[in-house]
Amino acid sequence: MPPTSDGPKWWSATSSSHHVVVVGGGFGGLQAVRKLRRAPVDITLIDRRNFHLFQPLVYQVATGALSPSEIASPLRGIFKRDKNVRVLLGQVTGFDLAKRHVLVDRLPDGSNARAIAYDSLVVAGGSSYSYFGHEEWRRFAPEVKSLESAVDVRRRILTAFEAAEVDPDPARRSAWLTFVVVGAGPTGVELAGQIAEIARDTLHGDFRTIDTRAARIVLIEKAERVLPLFPPGLSARAARALEGLGVTPLVARTVIGIDEQSVTIAGDAGEESERLPARTVVWAAGVVASEVAAALAAESGAELDRAGRVSVGPDLTLPGHPEVIALGDMVQVHDAEGRPVPLPGLAPVAMQQGRYAARAISERLRGKEPPPFRYRDKGNLATIGRAKAVADIKGLQLSGLLAWLTWLFVHLFYLIGLQNRLLVFIRWTFSFVTRGRGARLITGPPESR
Amino acid sequence: MPPTSDGPKWWSATSSSHHVVVVGGGFGGLQAVRKLRRAPVDITLIDRRNFHLFQPLVYQVATGALSPSEIASPLRGIFKRDKNVRVLLGQVTGFDLAKRHVLVDRLPDGSNARAIAYDSLVVAGGSSYSYFGHEEWRRFAPEVKSLESAVDVRRRILTAFEAAEVDPDPARRSAWLTFVVVGAGPTGVELAGQIAEIARDTLHGDFRTIDTRAARIVLIEKAERVLPLFPPGLSARAARALEGLGVTPLVARTVIGIDEQSVTIAGDAGEESERLPARTVVWAAGVVASEVAAALAAESGAELDRAGRVSVGPDLTLPGHPEVIALGDMVQVHDAEGRPVPLPGLAPVAMQQGRYAARAISERLRGKEPPPFRYRDKGNLATIGRAKAVADIKGLQLSGLLAWLTWLFVHLFYLIGLQNRLLVFIRWTFSFVTRGRGARLITGPPESR
Repeated sequence: MPPTSDGPKWWSATSSSHHVVVVGGGFGGLQAVRKLRRAPVDITLIDRRNFHLFQPLVYQVATGALSPSEIASPLRGIFKRDKNVRVLLGQVTGFDLAKRHVLVDRLPDGSNARAIAYDSLVVAGGSSYSYFGHEEWRRFAPEVKSLESAVDVRRRILTAFEAAEVDPDPARRSAWLTFVVVGAGPTGVELAGQIAEIARDTLHGDFRTIDTRAARIVLIEKAERVLPLFPPGLSARAARALEGLGVTPLVARTVIGIDEQSVTIAGDAGEESERLPARTVVWAAGVVASEVAAALAAESGAELDRAGRVSVGPDLTLPGHPEVIALGDMVQVHDAEGRPVPLPGLAPVAMQQGRYAARAISERLRGKEPPPFRYRDKGNLATIGRAKAVADIKGLQLSGLLAWLTWLFVHLFYLIGLQNRLLVFIRWTFSFVTRGRGARLITGPPESR
Repeated sequence: MPPTSDGPKWWSATSSSHHVVVVGGGFGGLQAVRKLRRAPVDITLIDRRNFHLFQPLVYQVATGALSPSEIASPLRGIFKRDKNVRVLLGQVTGFDLAKRHVLVDRLPDGSNARAIAYDSLVVAGGSSYSYFGHEEWRRFAPEVKSLESAVDVRRRILTAFEAAEVDPDPARRSAWLTFVVVGAGPTGVELAGQIAEIARDTLHGDFRTIDTRAARIVLIEKAERVLPLFPPGLSARAARALEGLGVTPLVARTVIGIDEQSVTIAGDAGEESERLPARTVVWAAGVVASEVAAALAAESGAELDRAGRVSVGPDLTLPGHPEVIALGDMVQVHDAEGRPVPLPGLAPVAMQQGRYAARAISERLRGKEPPPFRYRDKGNLATIGRAKAVADIKGLQLSGLLAWLTWLFVHLFYLIGLQNRLLVFIRWTFSFVTRGRGARLITGPPESR
């Protein structure tokens, strides 16, 4: 492919070689840029944020175990020495696949939308939680996805204990001390386990009126068991570990209403629905693809599934657009026969796809056709609490201390930067020894208190 | 004094002994409670926030050198084991000195204002920056005082570089790369020095269009020299160090206007005023006492000075109210002859006064009269940048590396908690070695990006 960059001057100054635009600095996008930086290409990485976020630990910010910057790495810092890599802060609002342009808005200088020309495009926009058509629940049951939402959930969890301490009414106090987590995937399970540990260990003794151990933590899951993506045996072990921590898992139950005071759960076959008074609800259910998936589908005519994911081929390219790769949990991969390939929405999938995208672009530049993408399943991990975790590694099922140590090691290993690894290691060590959580601050926007 | 606690049931359950209410969990209030916890009293510590904030390092959050939770310690954690100490989250809105009640609003359960009865009262409400009657400047030139304001300033500083990178207009780019700090006290000097280091070292090489070293950092001070509370020789050395870092100190100059695009500075004698295009302005000038000082003055008839500080006697008590002590930078202490005692608005003053308040209360409980408060000046420190600081310790004037190591040691020593000390030490070590700043995240309220 000849270079076709014809973007506005301000951005194409150095783009005389093949220009790759990567949308999204998450796991997939980051790997794509890392793998491409030695290739004879210019790369522009576009993200709304100036940092890569280590998503699997965001829930630990929500529980005060870690501080936001410890799980985030500035993108410019990561690619400081790679002079062919540019970082652009902005929100991608659409694509012009015919002209080969990415449309970017909300630039940091407040200017209007701009078009960035590309020769190859990698789109890794990720996903967010789905409220199943009930966007009005978001106000009462925030997701834990961005650092801001995690700090918001942290504020809600800690404020609930503070409110219980001063509220003289027993019924209201009990609602303040009831915490509901919706969705028992890894994040929901980890969150519920940590809230239980906060109530049982961290805050025990901190208050004078309430006994924080009286807190009730309810984990609601639509599927028949917690951690539905794990083998049933590990789900059972996880459920037992949760119960041991004081979490009540309610499986095969559907949330049908959330307001400021309560969560309403549909009744079991024939039974009436149940209204659970609870002032703190956290949402960790369902997944909906980033809106850039729909923008790609609209431009290319590719299919969009119910979760908002755009269909890509075996080589992750958009149908009819070999120069456009989309990846991560915003795509549905199809095999050569057009059958959907089931892939979990996990970081390892995005990372492998990001590296694949980089290889595919390099090979096409050399005139070769890349082989189809193949996911190598390295296993699945979830932690429940102190020295409690489950792991499913190539059929090997672990639980307890060994699974937990594996979880710790893997997460520290994949964190970016020696400094963050050290800081997180220190926080975890202190939490383990003291059962405390050092970052349990109630903070919010400047006007909040 | 006999116990007179007659507060609402929810709060007076354990208050059969002498009840001390401490307003404010800053340096002064914290020391008062710490020193009193072994005394035969019940203590209620009221603060708007659930943590003690190490104010002298807040500016390092604004520059991305430290993360918020590393300089904050949860108050409940500090007094976990002191069962006679209660922490109450809320905003003190006033006092009823006749009834001996503190009025508290914005309680965490959202309930209406409540009255908390006390036998002894310690008020340590602190101060904030004064915009000299120009509250409209706050929007454009935020102070660095709370963690939220520090994160806001961090967002502004980092976004300015991002905006300069994409703004094609040279004049606008230059305004994005101009940073103004108003006020050259220790915070202003430290902030200006750190912004210079960010531009010169941390971000150098991070951008592809701009040279961050072209950034202009202007430090404006009304007084004749920077660090006006230090001896003139150290001010001169600090000014030279600042210039060496690329900061332009403008002394004996007054800001007369701030808007989104610029700062206007009054002209030197006879000259015209100067309009400096700058998109990032940080306010670190003037000090105004907390509003609780005015509330105390209104109730007691004590004087209020121009900085909003309430007058207290040699024993820090409110005139006519030996049961009420006020301290820190919200008070003006008077000696036995009624002459104002000049005391700097620094943490050591508040800490010594907090400990004095605790001793005074204990002694009065034993029927003794405490001697007047005496401030022991242990010195004054300010850091300017990497291995650059000034120190004035009992007449001994230090600058350079030795002053900087003293500064580091003193700040690590007074930080609360081993974990925070370790985390800050690691961040500083990495910053020193790599000239990086690990926490340089652009974050804001959830809706911001």
